Amino acid sequence: MSTEFMILAPIAGLIALLFAFYLIRRITKMEPGNERMQEIAEAIHSGAMAFLKRQYKTLVIFILVIVVIISIIGLFTSGEGSLKWETAVAFAIGACCSILAGNIGMRIATKANVRTANAAHTSGLNRALNCAFSGGAVMGMSVVGLGLLGLGIVVLIFNNDSSIINGFSFGASSVALFGRVGGGIYTKAADVGADLVGKVEAGIPEDDPRNPAVVADNVGDNVGDVAGMGSDLFESYVGSVVAAIALGASLGIGANGEGVLAPLLVAAIGIIASIIGTFFVSAKEGGDPQKSLNKGNITATILAIIGTFVVTKLILPDTFEVMGIDGSTTVTYTNIGVFIASVAGLLVGFLIGNVTEYYTSAKYKPVKKIAASCETGTATNIITGVATGMASTAIPIILVAVGIWASYHFAGLYGIAMAAVGMLSTTGMVVAVDAYGPISDNAGGIAEMSKLPPEVRTITDQLDSVGNTTAAIGKGFAIGSAALTALALFTAYTQAVGISIINILEPDVVIGLFIGGMLPFFFCSMTMQSVGRAAGHMIEEVRRQFREIAGLMEGKAKADYARCVDISCQAALKEMVAPSLLAVLVPLLVGLLLGPACLGGVLCGTLVTGFLLAIFLANSGGAWDNAKKYIEEGNYGGKGSPAHAAAVNGDTVGDPFKDTSGPSLNILIKLMTIISLVFAPLFI
Amino acid sequence: MSTEFMILAPIAGLIALLFAFYLIRRITKMEPGNERMQEIAEAIHSGAMAFLKRQYKTLVIFILVIVVIISIIGLFTSGEGSLKWETAVAFAIGACCSILAGNIGMRIATKANVRTANAAHTSGLNRALNCAFSGGAVMGMSVVGLGLLGLGIVVLIFNNDSSIINGFSFGASSVALFGRVGGGIYTKAADVGADLVGKVEAGIPEDDPRNPAVVADNVGDNVGDVAGMGSDLFESYVGSVVAAIALGASLGIGANGEGVLAPLLVAAIGIIASIIGTFFVSAKEGGDPQKSLNKGNITATILAIIGTFVVTKLILPDTFEVMGIDGSTTVTYTNIGVFIASVAGLLVGFLIGNVTEYYTSAKYKPVKKIAASCETGTATNIITGVATGMASTAIPIILVAVGIWASYHFAGLYGIAMAAVGMLSTTGMVVAVDAYGPISDNAGGIAEMSKLPPEVRTITDQLDSVGNTTAAIGKGFAIGSAALTALALFTAYTQAVGISIINILEPDVVIGLFIGGMLPFFFCSMTMQSVGRAAGHMIEEVRRQFREIAGLMEGKAKADYARCVDISCQAALKEMVAPSLLAVLVPLLVGLLLGPACLGGVLCGTLVTGFLLAIFLANSGGAWDNAKKYIEEGNYGGKGSPAHAAAVNGDTVGDPFKDTSGPSLNILIKLMTIISLVFAPLFI
Repeated sequence: MSTEFMILAPIAGLIALLFAFYLIRRITKMEPGNERMQEIAEAIHSGAMAFLKRQYKTLVIFILVIVVIISIIGLFTSGEGSLKWETAVAFAIGACCSILAGNIGMRIATKANVRTANAAHTSGLNRALNCAFSGGAVMGMSVVGLGLLGLGIVVLIFNNDSSIINGFSFGASSVALFGRVGGGIYTKAADVGADLVGKVEAGIPEDDPRNPAVVADNVGDNVGDVAGMGSDLFESYVGSVVAAIALGASLGIGANGEGVLAPLLVAAIGIIASIIGTFFVSAKEGGDPQKSLNKGNITATILAIIGTFVVTKLILPDTFEVMGIDGSTTVTYTNIGVFIASVAGLLVGFLIGNVTEYYTSAKYKPVKKIAASCETGTATNIITGVATGMASTAIPIILVAVGIWASYHFAGLYGIAMAAVGMLSTTGMVVAVDAYGPISDNAGGIAEMSKLPPEVRTITDQLDSVGNTTAAIGKGFAIGSAALTALALFTAYTQAVGISIINILEPDVVIGLFIGGMLPFFFCSMTMQSVGRAAGHMIEEVRRQFREIAGLMEGKAKADYARCVDISCQAALKEMVAPSLLAVLVPLLVGLLLGPACLGGVLCGTLVTGFLLAIFLANSGGAWDNAKKYIEEGNYGGKGSPAHAAAVNGDTVGDPFKDTSGPSLNILIKLMTIISLVFAPLFI
Repeated sequence: MSTEFMILAPIAGLIALLFAFYLIRRITKMEPGNERMQEIAEAIHSGAMAFLKRQYKTLVIFILVIVVIISIIGLFTSGEGSLKWETAVAFAIGACCSILAGNIGMRIATKANVRTANAAHTSGLNRALNCAFSGGAVMGMSVVGLGLLGLGIVVLIFNNDSSIINGFSFGASSVALFGRVGGGIYTKAADVGADLVGKVEAGIPEDDPRNPAVVADNVGDNVGDVAGMGSDLFESYVGSVVAAIALGASLGIGANGEGVLAPLLVAAIGIIASIIGTFFVSAKEGGDPQKSLNKGNITATILAIIGTFVVTKLILPDTFEVMGIDGSTTVTYTNIGVFIASVAGLLVGFLIGNVTEYYTSAKYKPVKKIAASCETGTATNIITGVATGMASTAIPIILVAVGIWASYHFAGLYGIAMAAVGMLSTTGMVVAVDAYGPISDNAGGIAEMSKLPPEVRTITDQLDSVGNTTAAIGKGFAIGSAALTALALFTAYTQAVGISIINILEPDVVIGLFIGGMLPFFFCSMTMQSVGRAAGHMIEEVRRQFREIAGLMEGKAKADYARCVDISCQAALKEMVAPSLLAVLVPLLVGLLLGPACLGGVLCGTLVTGFLLAIFLANSGGAWDNAKKYIEEGNYGGKGSPAHAAAVNGDTVGDPFKDTSGPSLNILIKLMTIISLVFAPLFI
């Protein structure tokens, strides 16, 4: 099977983008509601765009610095221990594709929110669901479309040279760093700032337009859950394919680069499956939106499995030989083995998402137990939440372990990368379902602020509550995919530096494991404290506006929303410098000073504890959030009871856990690995 | 140098015990104070003994089961893949020595507390310090005395056969499991139970004799901080020497077993150094007890360093060759190299202790920052505490990394074990200083309950506040020593199963790392929840007594202290079953089913995350505790302020962190490794 089919990958990307534009047209044609609604929506929209603009200013400098560094090393050195200048080009393209995907997604999400509210007002549940989901699908299709189009073009231009292609993934990681770490700090700084001054000091309710930070808070939802999540999964998506390409090439799978082609086509098939899946999402009035989202998701998954079978069967040779890890004997694998590996990844992603839901949804025992523990106060709530989060690491780890075992058993190291590709093949659908959540959430906020009738709020609440479930599943999926992608990139790294043994018994490696294991703890500590400091700036600004803008509290003057957005954005970007430097410099310094084996230990240590901490933090935070909501529904005394006060404390603790530090770890583990992979030639 | 000097080890152990008996005589001769004081002290004493008795009932069964299992395997199988029945004998001796050390230590600590209070009353600071420190020194001398006497005898009887000697360490670990995990659950269940019903429901102050749980709470301090800590360090002490013996034998260091002799004699020298050190502990009236404890500690450390130099120089050959990890080339080391490795360990232990103090003492920035964060409420206090605990992992990890590097560089794998031996050589002194804390704490409680004049409380408070510092240092030391001991045992394990490569790139090993890394999280979750459940039983019993014993609240009837002790003891022992089974069964099952390399991955993963989590939990908990005390001193509004309420919540969250889950991890990492080492023949 020759590689002329390579062109199918960018074509599938293009199809995804065309579908996204079709959805965009459909959304923009919908009515944006009354003047008040439009005004609020415009404030959120322009706030989100202001955030992006501010972020780009820093991001561009960051990208240029990296481009210059790689180019200089590439141009002025040569031979084994050198980078190629073309890697810088791939890096820039990767970064631009991710930026563009985030920009489109945010732009449309902040248009879809108000239209969802209006659809709930004028047409009912189904139209509203459709609008919110379409908004999410634009983000999903932009991610996979630009991901595969960009990557496909880079592969074609640079003729399968994986040392160059890796740059694309590095570019995606850099943007994800800003999206997740910067965005994560921003969203919680805005949230805490809005709550502390608004609710506590000024005594005005949530989502009150008099609060200058209220728009920043709504912008934060988009920044964190739309753009942040999108950039994270863009990184995983691209990273998994890049790792499989690198391993397909270095292991020499297939005589004509079939090992490079297969992951691209599995991804392409996944796009088509996701597009078809979106058509299955629709609810009857009075129906359950969750069920219709599930229908779409399951359709996409089944189609992806079938498509993967066809692709692997047609593209890959029936059997192929790969050099074993020992470096002396060869092992024979089959194309069916690769198919099984891909499906294993897909299943692991699906199951991890569901485990996350179990631990964070009020429908199940863990959250109910946390809610019950609120009756004995804040401390027991915190302890139970921490214990729940820690316990929730067990099943995902075992699932990943089984996934690693199965994919390796059936298809070797290549199988591990193909498991990641398989897991991420339906990313388009996953992101769509996930980004649907914040859009519904925003719609509810707009309905509230513009005083639409209560039955509208009932519909948006229904959509929002489903959104919480999908967000939980999405978070679990994001963590699982980050781990598997990082593992695949790590495998590619070891091939790139030509190591076949990283021996734990070597003290270098043990030291690497210890230091690598510590980094996620230290990184989390930094990001948690950043939220506090960034929130401090926001609080000052809100207090200043209340003090200086006459008539603001009486509703006669308008708050300066944009300034709040800008200030907390600046603070977030400043705060992300230190943790980012940690993530970027540690692999470079360890690789250069202590060598590739020690770096292997570091990467592995970071991967293990990063994955564990990410699950722990995300699930503790999610469980506290839903325990609070469960109490607010009237359990254990409901709103205003002592149990509720305890639950609010838990929820506040959980905020930076689940929305800043936890998700940032996804980036840490991937970014450190991709940097090691890209700069591998320097470490040999 | 022949091995006739082997006898010096048990002799040093015997000297330690004789010194302990001398101290015991001195303490028991002191006046125990007035009738009221004696009555309270007797209640604590008999409560502590009741706890031990109850614990022994379960412990004996546990020990018998293990003895039978090992004996059966040993008697009915033979050859390579078999255990020796003699290992069961060593196991039983090890367990008995640890039990005896704990019994003596607890017995005397609960006699020294009341005498410390009385000395503070009648003679002032110096006598009181002397009494409390002597009480601690009895525990310290019992630990090292019985450790080295028992181990020395086992080594002599079984003629250096390390596969048998390992059993001794396993016995010590089993007792530590009960001491730390069971004891840790007990102490916090009693604490929470006493506080919740006493302070919150009945509205009576802390340490009020009407509270039926008050004695259990005081017993808990002894159980956790005297017996628990003692059994933990007994395990590390013995484990480090056993690991060095095993490596000295398997690496064939010295022609006549000098490699086996050296760690025994370094330990022996450490005992003598510790005994001399104790004579330097004395304070003038108005002096600083901290300084006098430091004087003793530093004296012991310097003497140990000098002694270690002499021992290594005299015993070990000037140069010796060891097979490198690659299994083909030999590396030459010197006896000076072994000395450097030992001192590296000693320094790492010392420095980790000091880092712990930095992060948990109100004298420094981190705790001050946590206290400040209490002003904005409980949630910010929790977040800042968690962030501080996570940040505090960095320096200890780097210290351990440097220690590993230095000891390996100068003396190979043997050096890593000798670093652990060096670190633990002054265990006698470390335990003495550490156990001094709870004795002073108890003395304060007794002074309070028996209404001694306030100047007595001033003295005991001064002693107690120093005790907090020494406890923090001791905790850091215990974690560091657990990590280094586990690493040494792990190295011995790999030698025992004959593996020279544990390759991270093998999926078995990666899976092992993931699962091993997860275990500490899961284990912590279990122990945290156990505290809650055990406290529940205690709360029920206290409520029952208030309800059923007429005149209790009015002070006319006596509470049934013993029943409270017994009930929470039973609950704690029941609760420790599940986490213990996890610690015992996982290495056995992984070793038998997935093989020694995968088990190597598991052990390494558990070691890394266990160490990290232990530091995180201990330091977060310690920092919250001292932030609360700092506020109680009058900062940020002092007692009764909103900041104080927030600080109390943080302290309560920190209780199971620092006193149950954190310290239990020390046991987990050591126990899993020693089990792997003992049962290694079955896994080959």
